[in-house]
Amino acid sequence: MSDNPSFVLKAIEEVVYEQRPIPEISGDQVLVEVKKTGICGSDVHYLVHGRIGDFVVKNPMVLGHESAGIVSKVGPNVKHLKVGDRVAVEPGATCRACDACKAGRYNLCPDIIFAATPPYDGTLARFYRVPADLAYPLPEGVSLEDGAMMEPLAVGIHSVSNLGGFRANQSIAIFGCGPVGLLCMAVAKALGAARIIAVDIVPSRLEFAKEYAATDTYVPIPANEGESKIDYSQRNGDAMKQQLGIEDRGSKAIDLVIDASGAEVSIQTAFQIVKAGGTFVQVGMGNPNVTIDYTMLVVKELVYKGSFRYGHGDYPLAIALVAQGKINLKPLVTHRFPFNEAITAFKATRTGKSEDGKGVIKAIISGPDVAVDED
Amino acid sequence: MSDNPSFVLKAIEEVVYEQRPIPEISGDQVLVEVKKTGICGSDVHYLVHGRIGDFVVKNPMVLGHESAGIVSKVGPNVKHLKVGDRVAVEPGATCRACDACKAGRYNLCPDIIFAATPPYDGTLARFYRVPADLAYPLPEGVSLEDGAMMEPLAVGIHSVSNLGGFRANQSIAIFGCGPVGLLCMAVAKALGAARIIAVDIVPSRLEFAKEYAATDTYVPIPANEGESKIDYSQRNGDAMKQQLGIEDRGSKAIDLVIDASGAEVSIQTAFQIVKAGGTFVQVGMGNPNVTIDYTMLVVKELVYKGSFRYGHGDYPLAIALVAQGKINLKPLVTHRFPFNEAITAFKATRTGKSEDGKGVIKAIISGPDVAVDED
Amino acid sequence: MSDNPSFVLKAIEEVVYEQRPIPEISGDQVLVEVKKTGICGSDVHYLVHGRIGDFVVKNPMVLGHESAGIVSKVGPNVKHLKVGDRVAVEPGATCRACDACKAGRYNLCPDIIFAATPPYDGTLARFYRVPADLAYPLPEGVSLEDGAMMEPLAVGIHSVSNLGGFRANQSIAIFGCGPVGLLCMAVAKALGAARIIAVDIVPSRLEFAKEYAATDTYVPIPANEGESKIDYSQRNGDAMKQQLGIEDRGSKAIDLVIDASGAEVSIQTAFQIVKAGGTFVQVGMGNPNVTIDYTMLVVKELVYKGSFRYGHGDYPLAIALVAQGKINLKPLVTHRFPFNEAITAFKATRTGKSEDGKGVIKAIISGPDVAVDED
Amino acid sequence: MSDNPSFVLKAIEEVVYEQRPIPEISGDQVLVEVKKTGICGSDVHYLVHGRIGDFVVKNPMVLGHESAGIVSKVGPNVKHLKVGDRVAVEPGATCRACDACKAGRYNLCPDIIFAATPPYDGTLARFYRVPADLAYPLPEGVSLEDGAMMEPLAVGIHSVSNLGGFRANQSIAIFGCGPVGLLCMAVAKALGAARIIAVDIVPSRLEFAKEYAATDTYVPIPANEGESKIDYSQRNGDAMKQQLGIEDRGSKAIDLVIDASGAEVSIQTAFQIVKAGGTFVQVGMGNPNVTIDYTMLVVKELVYKGSFRYGHGDYPLAIALVAQGKINLKPLVTHRFPFNEAITAFKATRTGKSEDGKGVIKAIISGPDVAVDED
Repeated sequence: MSDNPSFVLKAIEEVVYEQRPIPEISGDQVLVEVKKTGICGSDVHYLVHGRIGDFVVKNPMVLGHESAGIVSKVGPNVKHLKVGDRVAVEPGATCRACDACKAGRYNLCPDIIFAATPPYDGTLARFYRVPADLAYPLPEGVSLEDGAMMEPLAVGIHSVSNLGGFRANQSIAIFGCGPVGLLCMAVAKALGAARIIAVDIVPSRLEFAKEYAATDTYVPIPANEGESKIDYSQRNGDAMKQQLGIEDRGSKAIDLVIDASGAEVSIQTAFQIVKAGGTFVQVGMGNPNVTIDYTMLVVKELVYKGSFRYGHGDYPLAIALVAQGKINLKPLVTHRFPFNEAITAFKATRTGKSEDGKGVIKAIISGPDVAVDED
Repeated sequence: MSDNPSFVLKAIEEVVYEQRPIPEISGDQVLVEVKKTGICGSDVHYLVHGRIGDFVVKNPMVLGHESAGIVSKVGPNVKHLKVGDRVAVEPGATCRACDACKAGRYNLCPDIIFAATPPYDGTLARFYRVPADLAYPLPEGVSLEDGAMMEPLAVGIHSVSNLGGFRANQSIAIFGCGPVGLLCMAVAKALGAARIIAVDIVPSRLEFAKEYAATDTYVPIPANEGESKIDYSQRNGDAMKQQLGIEDRGSKAIDLVIDASGAEVSIQTAFQIVKAGGTFVQVGMGNPNVTIDYTMLVVKELVYKGSFRYGHGDYPLAIALVAQGKINLKPLVTHRFPFNEAITAFKATRTGKSEDGKGVIKAIISGPDVAVDED
Repeated sequence: MSDNPSFVLKAIEEVVYEQRPIPEISGDQVLVEVKKTGICGSDVHYLVHGRIGDFVVKNPMVLGHESAGIVSKVGPNVKHLKVGDRVAVEPGATCRACDACKAGRYNLCPDIIFAATPPYDGTLARFYRVPADLAYPLPEGVSLEDGAMMEPLAVGIHSVSNLGGFRANQSIAIFGCGPVGLLCMAVAKALGAARIIAVDIVPSRLEFAKEYAATDTYVPIPANEGESKIDYSQRNGDAMKQQLGIEDRGSKAIDLVIDASGAEVSIQTAFQIVKAGGTFVQVGMGNPNVTIDYTMLVVKELVYKGSFRYGHGDYPLAIALVAQGKINLKPLVTHRFPFNEAITAFKATRTGKSEDGKGVIKAIISGPDVAVDED
Repeated sequence: MSDNPSFVLKAIEEVVYEQRPIPEISGDQVLVEVKKTGICGSDVHYLVHGRIGDFVVKNPMVLGHESAGIVSKVGPNVKHLKVGDRVAVEPGATCRACDACKAGRYNLCPDIIFAATPPYDGTLARFYRVPADLAYPLPEGVSLEDGAMMEPLAVGIHSVSNLGGFRANQSIAIFGCGPVGLLCMAVAKALGAARIIAVDIVPSRLEFAKEYAATDTYVPIPANEGESKIDYSQRNGDAMKQQLGIEDRGSKAIDLVIDASGAEVSIQTAFQIVKAGGTFVQVGMGNPNVTIDYTMLVVKELVYKGSFRYGHGDYPLAIALVAQGKINLKPLVTHRFPFNEAITAFKATRTGKSEDGKGVIKAIISGPDVAVDED
């Protein structure tokens, strides 16, 4: 077991398997043998576009950052882990000395080494090295596949609980029923939401959302010809409020909105439907330039927050809620692939369905030595 | 003294003086004889457009809401005021029983009776009636003109201190050097700012800002022909950062940005220059629809907050900072008019200068019985 | 139905039934026909001692403040209630104009008119008058008895959720298994506690707590002869930590401690077992002077908070958690009495058991016209 | 300059000068040549008692932890410092990986290596090694003596600003006029306090406090014979309120109390005088067991917080406030000693005065090669 096969993005639309050296670990690190890795939209984006904003793939880069595996080596200073432990991997190693790190907001560390964000290699390999405190033991009953899902779940925890401050008996609306949107719904449900409204333009996704965690769903009304997006969104917000009985204040109001779509119309509509004094957390990303009616922000004294990755406490809460049975990740894993079919997995994620026509929510790639259905 | 002359907006561009009944007061109210009233952009906006957003002047309405005066009558339950007391008037009476009122966010009360916001009459009259707790005694050394300025100052307090959470040694950038922008600078200075950057397109306004409270100023660079606003703002933000040595993190970063301009370019530039993890408070209002690059919000995990009027604690802090000499309001009062020249005062505010060409920051109208230079 | 029989405390140990005038209501008030009233320790304390701290019963006073009933009259300004509505009564009418009220902390209003706190009459009468916003409609499925229990439940909400900031997956220890302690446990459970440790010196109370909501229980170890309380509490804290596997930090730590006992040893032990950086909320009251080891406060940087009654949002959350089935109040109502047996009800609460020897958690007295088992 | 003379505590009351090896530095560390070191009460306590609570001096330990000096060597990864830089030293190196460190509360790190807290050596030597981010460059105009004072000033910042949340126009009372109490006053003044009340039993200390930063002073009234401390403190609190016009609410109330004395009577009195809804921060330490009237905590809904050392942002704010001239540290340095007279310096600090009878606030010991009056 001295080899380290890795799934490497060499250039746009060009991926290959390569042998890479097994990473050396220092005193505070562990080496994880990766067993399960989920594919994220950002992995696909690098494959197709070679960049995300200012992050440009200039040199070959191992893909993947949603992983769990088994501890294979531990540095001499590591106390809480031993070889053989099953762990979820938090894929961002920070400097621990900058202002952001010391303030408890390490996701803003400018020197973060984040898996599969150029120039740093990702986790789609046999081995991945992390600081020991970023390898979280999985409790009994939490599978390695669950472990790989902790990364997107931590995104949901960060948005809904940490930044959104969501609490029992509050109401939430979530735009976008992809993996992150669904996981935000799962978090809201686990935290005791009174009402969870799922919004999407694809009815089948809404059906799934409702089965999974939402209490209500909303399909946007059609736009009129020639109508500006902002005018449309105004009408759409009104329709949504009327259809679902949403008010600006009181127990029928929406305390928190999450946009997990990145779509302009979602963002515009969110401003309309969130309650006076409410919070709107942006976690989805799409076309960067959107038009908003900022007078909504002012007269309702809203708070509009960006949510970036995850930070202190997010992984532990994610793992605990799954271990306690308050969040069930299994329904989201729709597709599984062996390591040598990673390209097929990316293709399915990219097109949103597998060859048999089944819609993809999350595709998981097994590590080189693992059968697809092994946990 | 039984009459109550009032300055009434009857229709767009049509104002008249009328006798109105002197308001009756109930047990918890006081009657204030108004002595000084500042003119606000919103008063002018009602005069010129007859509406602000959904607030439409359908019936004749007394204008004015930035006022101070002398207590003329006190209701039987009022303990902390007596006839003759000099007071600043907070011009929004709230229901005190709704969720917003009981949560300590009374500026979001849907039933607020706000002076000179239709359908409610304003303060440009001899007498104005308020709940006693909204009449704040002016300490010795604080003039009635200062008292009239407490309203816009409370807006600055609310934005910078209350919502912005601004603290000693932080850095702030303020877009727009009108009265509210200048007052935000004054608040930042009083709270111990390390750096106060004033931004405006009019150099003379920046000169005044620097004399008054700012430590640095910035004039936006020229736009290129055919350049989109968002592209221009990106370049403008870069230029501003370079020119002033602004960084994204650390002691050279901008902790808080206030937009007091309502201009699209200001809002766009604000997202560029505010630090990672920083806060951006929107207090100015203009054309409602603006395009933002919301990926800045996400990757820097910004908080973008709307600021609406003022709330608990804002008036007391405003008055205290003036009484302690930490804020000097006098330089902002550039023009003074007697009650019977209110129309001239509005004209000067509207055009931004008086007939002699002097720029208007704030014009104050004296009460019917008061000489212009009397305090 | 013109009479208003009332249960009146005339002097220490002297209670009588009296006819009192039916209260007149003003525009914003409602008249509630009281149907169910729980007896609280403070009611008993006034009966036995005639005072609580500085609150001294100088004139005859109607007892009772934990009540629900049916709206019997509504003031002309009241919109959200109508005659016949079933409501829980929040028994503290505040001034709505002081600093505390306007800051969103109305429980600190110095002019609060609180039921059965001298000199104000309580709710053990046929009719009670409240401002309409303090009469909360009971959703279907929430009984009037549940409604009477909302008052102590709101105390638990205020301590655990509002002041304690308790969130999903946190651990809590609660000292004292009387009604308030048990309700704090119910709240912690409803909010998704990972661990709820009940502490009491009476094993049967712990058994009930565990059946009801606790995950763990602890009976204090015996004290040594001649040992000071503080030395004993140190040993007791050590024993509790060892027995339950409590650590000072991490996932085995206690995030929040509630003392609902008011006992010195509880308070001392709480300082020992709460985690570094943790919070300790004091809601119980007993002998006022207790000795604490305040170096624990310093080196662990604890926050020790007092919790007084309840405030904004507490009643609505209490009602919602019961309506959603997350809190079950029924097991706590151990005894029921008709109005004319109020004295027996007080006796049972005072001694802690009824004549048949059954332990009292909460005794509910029905309104004058209601059968005991009617809801 | 290869030697490293160090001032070493060998046993209770036994200190010697020893040559110690010059510390090796790793990549992220710097070696500081210590130039100025203040003596703290804790240094004296170790000298006299050999322990503070559970921290016991078992092996010889270099004393001192309030230091500034000149960077003598920098590790290869260090970017923001170079040899020759003047720096203040934050004397606690933390693990950066535990829950507390990652949550932004690194002062609660259980593995902190704190100077002169057993078993770790302190700074009273020629050389001291620290992680580079704990060496803060001193701006021009801030002397090395000022730099040595940043440690106790950071304690004041942490208590007043960070934990106390003190803001402009608030009122504060500070019990104890030793160095930490005085520095808390300086911080409150710099943050724009409306009122700063100094409390001490030594009138000359109060005189100094008033000259330095306080607006008011209070000398406790005499106790009656046989009176319990808690009864006395009740009377003392009443007297203090009356004498200084302190109320429980409103603009005459005390928003924040700091106890920098550790005395039981101070703590008891603090509970009496702090406003309803106010905050009381404990920073002083003395006899651990004190009796409090915790019903004050409950009925006034107080927050009583422990303050331990300092954390994120405290050093930078301390340095900035001094650099901006908002805090003047010079009046507090009453005594200066050369390195070879460290024993005399400790003696003076211990007795509170030097041989000439002059009261000691802070004694500074120069580094081995520095003349006493050199900056």
